[in-house]
Amino acid sequence: MRIAGRHWRSIALAADGWSLEVIDQTRLPFAFELQRLRCVEDAVRALCTMIVRGAPLIGVTAAYGVALAVRSDATDASLGRALQMLGATRPTAVNLAWALARMAAVLRPLAPGQRADRAYTEAAAIAEEDVRCGQAIGQHGLALLRRLAAAHPERPLNVLTHCNAGWLACVDWGTALAPLYAAHEAGLPVHVYVDETRPRNQGAALTAFELGAHGVPYTLLADNAGGHLMQRGRIDVCLVGCDRMTARGDVANKIGTYLKALAAHDNDVPFHVALPFSSIDWTLDDGFAEIPIEERAPDEVTHVAGRDETGRIVSVALAPHGAAAANPAFDVTPARLITGIITERGLADASRTGLTALYRSTRAPRAAGA
Amino acid sequence: MRIAGRHWRSIALAADGWSLEVIDQTRLPFAFELQRLRCVEDAVRALCTMIVRGAPLIGVTAAYGVALAVRSDATDASLGRALQMLGATRPTAVNLAWALARMAAVLRPLAPGQRADRAYTEAAAIAEEDVRCGQAIGQHGLALLRRLAAAHPERPLNVLTHCNAGWLACVDWGTALAPLYAAHEAGLPVHVYVDETRPRNQGAALTAFELGAHGVPYTLLADNAGGHLMQRGRIDVCLVGCDRMTARGDVANKIGTYLKALAAHDNDVPFHVALPFSSIDWTLDDGFAEIPIEERAPDEVTHVAGRDETGRIVSVALAPHGAAAANPAFDVTPARLITGIITERGLADASRTGLTALYRSTRAPRAAGA
Repeated sequence: MRIAGRHWRSIALAADGWSLEVIDQTRLPFAFELQRLRCVEDAVRALCTMIVRGAPLIGVTAAYGVALAVRSDATDASLGRALQMLGATRPTAVNLAWALARMAAVLRPLAPGQRADRAYTEAAAIAEEDVRCGQAIGQHGLALLRRLAAAHPERPLNVLTHCNAGWLACVDWGTALAPLYAAHEAGLPVHVYVDETRPRNQGAALTAFELGAHGVPYTLLADNAGGHLMQRGRIDVCLVGCDRMTARGDVANKIGTYLKALAAHDNDVPFHVALPFSSIDWTLDDGFAEIPIEERAPDEVTHVAGRDETGRIVSVALAPHGAAAANPAFDVTPARLITGIITERGLADASRTGLTALYRSTRAPRAAGA
Repeated sequence: MRIAGRHWRSIALAADGWSLEVIDQTRLPFAFELQRLRCVEDAVRALCTMIVRGAPLIGVTAAYGVALAVRSDATDASLGRALQMLGATRPTAVNLAWALARMAAVLRPLAPGQRADRAYTEAAAIAEEDVRCGQAIGQHGLALLRRLAAAHPERPLNVLTHCNAGWLACVDWGTALAPLYAAHEAGLPVHVYVDETRPRNQGAALTAFELGAHGVPYTLLADNAGGHLMQRGRIDVCLVGCDRMTARGDVANKIGTYLKALAAHDNDVPFHVALPFSSIDWTLDDGFAEIPIEERAPDEVTHVAGRDETGRIVSVALAPHGAAAANPAFDVTPARLITGIITERGLADASRTGLTALYRSTRAPRAAGA
């Protein structure tokens, strides 16, 4: 999508044709800086420190991380080590395990000398599929937004989103934000309420940045405010992304998603989850019992980075010195609270029936949108 | 309550016997500073800028603000102007209107020459009543906590609270935190999960400070995390304060309270609201239609104050330059989501029946805990 009129992707091959350039998402919205990934360790660090984040982008970065590893050492040992290191970076988004399994399945049968080229080809295919998924989610979601907007053509459609499920979370377009970009391009007026998404502020830092740079109107909210706005009829629909959906439609997404789903349900506001097929974990059923929830460092809660009046990015403490803090990074929203899902295959219920209807031909499609 | 072993109140007469000393709550938890209020304009500024905040303390400060006004000018015009200015500072907490109406009723019939002494006496009575209410709420709440703790005597009782309803929100003891202080004093082990309470971080700044200074164990949480912890059985009870309760039991409290009440209801976690009689608005029924919700400045969402590594308190931006933000300061939790209320008169349902049973003798008691 666009920043100041120029088209960007969150990850791309550098001019050298083998290293990766990623947008450093820990510096946004204050500084727009690229980071170069030259080895698998760079990719691991970028994933752990959330220089890159977002379920689809986590998968793509891991795939390219494998490519970087086998480029420098294509032995079975090197490949195995890369898969293990990358697989241990983030536990919740299933796109990570999915992308690594796909890379392993393609590369393991090959002789070492053939692996590097094939790894780059497969990683690029995963990235291009993600872009096509985003486009398709955008068009299917746009149809939904048009229907919802028809109820009050005199004003913009008010959409609440949580965290960042935009192009920065993917390669381009996004998941939850893709329909909003599609609406904006199509001239359907939308206005987005953006949860700031504590503790890492992906809403304030990334979604606000994305939407603003692309020209989509938005209003930032404390995470506490969405329920109140829904009570007052100021939200027409909630649209969020997804780190992992189980086969019955439970959804792990950024911490706080469950609270907004409860409020949407209590106020008859439609609550939709947008995701590509690579975020579906067909091996799991009960999201509460089975999806691992990442616990991150307490200092993400007790401290926050911001821009001071001199323009410097500084970390400041928000709590008393030595305060204990807990920091679960995701929660699980049960399928019963989800009005529907938007995937590259179309719209469906968040249920085994709905998912099966979309993906009838195959339970683990290799190439979506094709 | 105690800070470093010394007993403090949030507001007290200064040594001169007529000006007020308040703890500057905008500087906590980083700096402990007193502010002196010498005229009604000082009181107005302290209320508007949230140097003092919390429904009961808002009422007490307003009462003393009237005393400061009539001390310097006891005419009807001065009294009327003070009531008007103070009454316009904060719209949601009914304790403000309640305290001002009480001061007006006492002072208006008097000759100007008698007003100043009487105003100080009445303001002091309101403050002392608040302390007695806090003590009584603490003891009634302790009985409730003992019953809940009996279900698992092998571990501390885990309590979630939102915003600050402690002694800093009152004169001493607090409302929602009073039972926790009572439990701590009585040797009943409690552990408090403290919502940081964006955008003004009253949880991280005030509740964490209070509990830590007094020695009550706590863990700070992003506001997004409480639902997840309730799903996982890690919260035994929610305890919050209240800015205004209607006669049927709807509650206006700090923005985000409604989301936690929804999560508590969805997970069968008891959700209790602690309040003194002065927070009950007998004139209102439907909290959604009738309680005015304060909308505060957008920069409270886009910027935050914290302590940088040099110890300086700085304000930093969290969002892109020029980001729009909405900042509703309270939401309404319907009575159907409230397990019970804790007042200075005891425990009851959040309903007209429950409230009437507690306050049968009078619909607007003048002296509670007496």
